[in-house]
Amino acid sequence: MKKTDLLFTGLFLLSMGLITPAIADPVHDALYKDEVAWDIVEGLTTEVGPRQAGTEAETRARIWSLAKLKMLGFDNVRIENYQMPTWVRGEESAEVLSPFPQKLAVTALGNSGSTSANGLEAELVYFDNLAELQAVDDDQLKGKIAFVNHAMQRTQDGSSYGAFGGARFIGPNVAAQKGAAAIVIRSAGTDYHRNPHTGNTNFETGVTPIPAGALSLPDAENLLRMIKRGKPVMLKLILTPQNIGMQPSGNVIAEVKGSTDLPPIVIACHLDSWDLGTGAFDDAAGCGIITAAALKVKETGMPKRTIRLLWAGAEEVGIWGGKAYGEKYKNQPHALAMESDFGADRIWRVDFKLPVSAEQLGNDIAAALAPLGISRGTQPAGGGADVGPIIAAQNLAIIDLQQDGTRYFDLHHTPDDTLDKVDKMQLRQNVAAWTAVLGLVANYEGSLALDSKL
Amino acid sequence: MKKTDLLFTGLFLLSMGLITPAIADPVHDALYKDEVAWDIVEGLTTEVGPRQAGTEAETRARIWSLAKLKMLGFDNVRIENYQMPTWVRGEESAEVLSPFPQKLAVTALGNSGSTSANGLEAELVYFDNLAELQAVDDDQLKGKIAFVNHAMQRTQDGSSYGAFGGARFIGPNVAAQKGAAAIVIRSAGTDYHRNPHTGNTNFETGVTPIPAGALSLPDAENLLRMIKRGKPVMLKLILTPQNIGMQPSGNVIAEVKGSTDLPPIVIACHLDSWDLGTGAFDDAAGCGIITAAALKVKETGMPKRTIRLLWAGAEEVGIWGGKAYGEKYKNQPHALAMESDFGADRIWRVDFKLPVSAEQLGNDIAAALAPLGISRGTQPAGGGADVGPIIAAQNLAIIDLQQDGTRYFDLHHTPDDTLDKVDKMQLRQNVAAWTAVLGLVANYEGSLALDSKL
Repeated sequence: MKKTDLLFTGLFLLSMGLITPAIADPVHDALYKDEVAWDIVEGLTTEVGPRQAGTEAETRARIWSLAKLKMLGFDNVRIENYQMPTWVRGEESAEVLSPFPQKLAVTALGNSGSTSANGLEAELVYFDNLAELQAVDDDQLKGKIAFVNHAMQRTQDGSSYGAFGGARFIGPNVAAQKGAAAIVIRSAGTDYHRNPHTGNTNFETGVTPIPAGALSLPDAENLLRMIKRGKPVMLKLILTPQNIGMQPSGNVIAEVKGSTDLPPIVIACHLDSWDLGTGAFDDAAGCGIITAAALKVKETGMPKRTIRLLWAGAEEVGIWGGKAYGEKYKNQPHALAMESDFGADRIWRVDFKLPVSAEQLGNDIAAALAPLGISRGTQPAGGGADVGPIIAAQNLAIIDLQQDGTRYFDLHHTPDDTLDKVDKMQLRQNVAAWTAVLGLVANYEGSLALDSKL
Repeated sequence: MKKTDLLFTGLFLLSMGLITPAIADPVHDALYKDEVAWDIVEGLTTEVGPRQAGTEAETRARIWSLAKLKMLGFDNVRIENYQMPTWVRGEESAEVLSPFPQKLAVTALGNSGSTSANGLEAELVYFDNLAELQAVDDDQLKGKIAFVNHAMQRTQDGSSYGAFGGARFIGPNVAAQKGAAAIVIRSAGTDYHRNPHTGNTNFETGVTPIPAGALSLPDAENLLRMIKRGKPVMLKLILTPQNIGMQPSGNVIAEVKGSTDLPPIVIACHLDSWDLGTGAFDDAAGCGIITAAALKVKETGMPKRTIRLLWAGAEEVGIWGGKAYGEKYKNQPHALAMESDFGADRIWRVDFKLPVSAEQLGNDIAAALAPLGISRGTQPAGGGADVGPIIAAQNLAIIDLQQDGTRYFDLHHTPDDTLDKVDKMQLRQNVAAWTAVLGLVANYEGSLALDSKL
């Protein structure tokens, strides 16, 4: 019998259910066949769509998620509600009045103040970056509209968001303190579409929020070209968001029950999304990935440790879900935390924060991930936004599976964050990596309590 | 003296103005150094921006163009006005009401009818393509909203626009005739951004226009996923465009005067753009290309034939400028027509429609273009929209320089048609090719009158 004949006979018997492979490989299964992660992203984006925290759409998302996680066979599936302050978008437009009249694509940043319905007209004052805004004398900005540019570039590790995101994070607060009437920034993003990037900004207590908008990159560059021609540029800005007070939000929680009383592993994604897109990359993908992987581990038999899934609410607007989880469970011991919240592209690096005693676990995980094209980082893992509060409360061990962020800031917080951007093959690589890690860590019986020095 | 020394000495003397090269090569000059084309695209998109036909913005564009063409040293620079019926965009939004409430990105097609300010709510009826819409019984569509999908793909020659554009060109008229309340189509485009593609649709005389919108590709695919789940889909559509009657539009015309009375060459682009973008690709680039090339020819000495530049008005909304030109000049003999209106990417093919007697001219042009990576087509040239009327009136010879359309329908008629999409190197290749062709054809003294059989 030739080798090929033998192979085909084997496949034939397998397909007839006459033989079963001795050991199912859940990692390869995830890599080549997983449909669960895609199904969750497809379902959330199609059947719910945008699901801004505190809105009725986020409530629908929780109901959808509860049913989905029950249907998938998870244990202890539940919603845990809380209340949170809610800001909602209104009308938004921007228009150069002179010297070169034309409309610009703008969107309000979360927590932006509001213009009147008729808008605000004022002269622009240009700043190359946040530091220039911070350095300007108050009297040069009073009653005017600050325009803050920056030089954010695409990076695999997403580090440019931290480096250049300040224009969004604190620029509006700085401008408000200096008496500006409003502020527009170049979107904290990397794509050249006329879709500005929203995202929260924050005003300090006692600082009255001013209207704060983001321009798309083509618009920011067009505006800069106008400014460089040397004449005063007058802008009309209409942004009419509102604060609608405390509203219900909530976390959706599900578990794969473990066979022992060892402290559980908590793994998180966030269920809420910004309102402009359908939240496929940010963060339905994360929920799909962690859920599909937990299910794969469950299918191979009950793990030693419980795996708890936290589909957090209200991450985008202040990590309200993560804070509620941390507060509620601060006295229940956890072993380790992980989070998936950086899109749907492939994992390229693993970072650890483990006790010295668990060195072998780290080595085993790194070895299991290497065939998936994942290398080991040299810096300690930091966790994610939603597991941040419980990590802080308990000084938890962490494993980070770092995703390729090269195109993340093309999509993040924009209307373009939709299902078509998700690459199913890369999504499956995520599920495979998570499956490998969860299979090892949830069956690890040694202590994961960090050495006090860490 | 070594060769390199000789070269540098030559360059030094050249740079000091001490010697002049015997023959300037305007084609290489265009390819490596042209700034005129970029300058026109940059200027129009920055200082004017969107310039929809019949609006005040198009008037500003004519004034800008008149000054620019005079400044560049053209002869007989002038505006030739006409009146045209004008349609302008209003509010626009689309929202799935059930079973999966969420907003969709929509834009009105040119000539769309209007909903009330409160919008229209109706059930969707899905069609895979235009033929399915054409085949449906009227009673299945009456009072409902048709949703027409299609399978347009990106192509180098842009042929898929003709093949699949029918959903936009005539779909609304078909739906209106069958009693539909409104129609939405998958945008006639190829990009996956939430920026729908506008463009004219036309209703036959006697057919009352219905609201007609285009959805972005991500939205069309999301809507299709909803429909495939089997429940009726209710849509709320707000589109409030208006017809504002006859408005002034106009052509801007400039010439490079020829040394003989031989009939002129007419070369066209269009000055108007759709309102959503800044009309960089469509068609400031075309105006930049033909103008820079004509200038290069002028710089090498007066050509035998006059080169007339037609920066046509109102192409997008019915070729009103091209028709006005054709009518005004139908009794003034022309030799040959060319047009640039397919973006800013490189030219890959040249097509001819020349008399048999001009075979050598065609061969010379093809030989001149080959080093630029341009091959010779096998089909007769067809001309462009704006030169169509004068070609039809006089049965003119034509040369088409075909641009790479691979990404043209990512940008065409969308907010994303902005300066940042123009690749300066490819733009210069266009100028070089046009310079080569104009240099040969404007100095060709033989007859270009087509044989009667053509």
